[in-house]
Amino acid sequence: MAAATLDYTTLLRSDLPPASPKWNGFPKYNFVGGHNDPDSTPVEALVKAAETVLKREGRTLATYNLESGAQGYRPLREFVAKKVKADAGIDCTADDILIVTGSNQGLDLVNRVLLGPGDTIIGEEMSYGSAITRVAKAGTKWVGAPLDKGGIQMDKLANILADLKIKGVTPKYIYTIPTVQNPTATVMPVERRLEMIKLSELYGVPIFEDECYADLTWAGERPKAIRALAGNDRVIHLGSFSKSIAPAMRLGYLIAGWPVMSRMLAVKTDGGTPAIEQMVMAEFASQHFDAHVKTLRKALKRKLDVLIEAVQAEFGTAAEFERPDGGIFLWIKLPDQVDTMKLFQAASKEGVAINPGVEWSSNKELGKTRLRICFANPSEQTIREGVAKLAEVCHREFGVPLRSRNVQR
Amino acid sequence: MAAATLDYTTLLRSDLPPASPKWNGFPKYNFVGGHNDPDSTPVEALVKAAETVLKREGRTLATYNLESGAQGYRPLREFVAKKVKADAGIDCTADDILIVTGSNQGLDLVNRVLLGPGDTIIGEEMSYGSAITRVAKAGTKWVGAPLDKGGIQMDKLANILADLKIKGVTPKYIYTIPTVQNPTATVMPVERRLEMIKLSELYGVPIFEDECYADLTWAGERPKAIRALAGNDRVIHLGSFSKSIAPAMRLGYLIAGWPVMSRMLAVKTDGGTPAIEQMVMAEFASQHFDAHVKTLRKALKRKLDVLIEAVQAEFGTAAEFERPDGGIFLWIKLPDQVDTMKLFQAASKEGVAINPGVEWSSNKELGKTRLRICFANPSEQTIREGVAKLAEVCHREFGVPLRSRNVQR
Repeated sequence: MAAATLDYTTLLRSDLPPASPKWNGFPKYNFVGGHNDPDSTPVEALVKAAETVLKREGRTLATYNLESGAQGYRPLREFVAKKVKADAGIDCTADDILIVTGSNQGLDLVNRVLLGPGDTIIGEEMSYGSAITRVAKAGTKWVGAPLDKGGIQMDKLANILADLKIKGVTPKYIYTIPTVQNPTATVMPVERRLEMIKLSELYGVPIFEDECYADLTWAGERPKAIRALAGNDRVIHLGSFSKSIAPAMRLGYLIAGWPVMSRMLAVKTDGGTPAIEQMVMAEFASQHFDAHVKTLRKALKRKLDVLIEAVQAEFGTAAEFERPDGGIFLWIKLPDQVDTMKLFQAASKEGVAINPGVEWSSNKELGKTRLRICFANPSEQTIREGVAKLAEVCHREFGVPLRSRNVQR
Repeated sequence: MAAATLDYTTLLRSDLPPASPKWNGFPKYNFVGGHNDPDSTPVEALVKAAETVLKREGRTLATYNLESGAQGYRPLREFVAKKVKADAGIDCTADDILIVTGSNQGLDLVNRVLLGPGDTIIGEEMSYGSAITRVAKAGTKWVGAPLDKGGIQMDKLANILADLKIKGVTPKYIYTIPTVQNPTATVMPVERRLEMIKLSELYGVPIFEDECYADLTWAGERPKAIRALAGNDRVIHLGSFSKSIAPAMRLGYLIAGWPVMSRMLAVKTDGGTPAIEQMVMAEFASQHFDAHVKTLRKALKRKLDVLIEAVQAEFGTAAEFERPDGGIFLWIKLPDQVDTMKLFQAASKEGVAINPGVEWSSNKELGKTRLRICFANPSEQTIREGVAKLAEVCHREFGVPLRSRNVQR
């Protein structure tokens, strides 16, 4: 029996975002998203890890959260504790760590316990797009702190904090991506980290440190994490395995003191992060993390070199950028007549996907002429072709670059 | 440098639930939670599935959502489409299916797009505790529909709908667990399902059908799903692999029409359900699902028999219950002088964990003397000992049963 259909229009909430389009596969030249280099995925080692850990502990899949409680699989937390000590100087134990289903869940949990409508946070004026939209969804104001090659400018941050204090506003946190900043790919020097801690003390404002890309510095080293330098819970630290191992595995971690951790656990009603993912990661990472990341960095740096070469060849001096200190993206400034949102739309039609700068900026004026190009996923050939195609579209739409290389040929 | 610590008290949202306690391991007699039978976990087949699928497709872990888009790993959706057709009579394709990270995410997504403060839904008057709390968190009213051995009583449901209509209220959905109802473990006959569809048509109210336990009927068969009988999108269908395979894997699925699906996708900003979990499940389930569930049902039924024998031996006629048609829990009514919330507290101190009935009831009066005992996880020996301990505590606190068997001995 076929019953009459039902119209959901009047039943749906009136404040929803627009409906999602159907997925039609990735664009041909896919320069967006935190996708990684497929050739660098450590498939054989992951297979071995899955076999070993499932044979040893597979029975525990019968219990929610395995035998580890809601903070996540204990061996993975123990690996994270060792890793952040060795790489970032953070002293903590497995009890200070919460495994999250991707760092976005970390952002959601921190925001869920701290942010509400009318609140204010301070963030970098160019920052992770999804962090910006999450803060906006909470009804919270994002005050953008100006950046230079060393990340947030501390005198400017001091001014912002002082101005807010005069207005009676205590920001809920200072959100920063200090190590391989997204999108500028800079690394904040240790002196600025120490200055930020002093400002945090002076104004009673926590620091929310997002280090999702910190494993991917070309130097292979990085300054101590702000949490390490502060030595206490005024810094909430967020990390991820998405960029260092595989984004589809959806694994990240939060390090926080119990007053915040216990509240995040109370609102985290998801039944735990999926277990096989956690088990495989713990087994794999405890043996292969360092060696894998070393190889990955080289592969990514090679692709960056290809990208920079292509951008310089196609755009010439029209494209301004700082050479990234690490990561998977290049942040480019184009001449003022280019509106990268319009460029994004025109390029999309020809199979080239880019991030328009306004989506990665709290300061929309700054974002208008900028764009982000992610380079980890496409092949070297695809990078070259895609950048040529982008230059062609940009020339056609904005006369920038003055002559496209394709036209000259 | 150790900096001064920071007090988060005034920074946290004022409307948070109480802080979570630290996890100290499972209680000795753990009769709560949807844990499964560890002996029935298909470890060897999962190992083999992991090896096969990761070797074949491991490279795709480098991309968010593999090559499948935000609705989830396509081979898993294709398995679900086949499975729900064969088991529940539902006609759908992979495009109608959204893989969710546990059925709780399914509840959250449906609620997120439909429910707001001041809204009303109709649910069973005894129902899944976490569904009840989620609706309450949305600020939405849960109107409880009375149950009997066949699930919701349709004349009562008709009255509720008529009453609400007089008040100008259109409920956002009718939430039902028709097949192995939680907590009563009944199966709604097909006639009532058809009546419910008629009421849905008459009042323009969608049905939200939660079939998380539907694979676990002792009969091995079940009536067609309400979505199958309706033959269209007025029914949103939720299923899970937690009870049939492993809860720690956190895999469920939603079946819904595009008007609702496209809105859920727009608010689902988690970067996708973890990939290895999905890949392993698809590979495992497409070969072993039916055989595995057949074996599991037998193991669970054996444990239920042990539980019922123990309850009858320890509580005698003081414990009233219907014999479950399937599932992993027994719903017990104790005499009126027993307050199961107090019993829960006293038993907890002695290592016996139970679900007090008020947490599984929208009608708190009904719940006061009832409790839920989950039997899939503990061993037969633990079930016997735990029920004896529970009877001892109940006798001491409430004089029920009149004489505890331990005292008589």
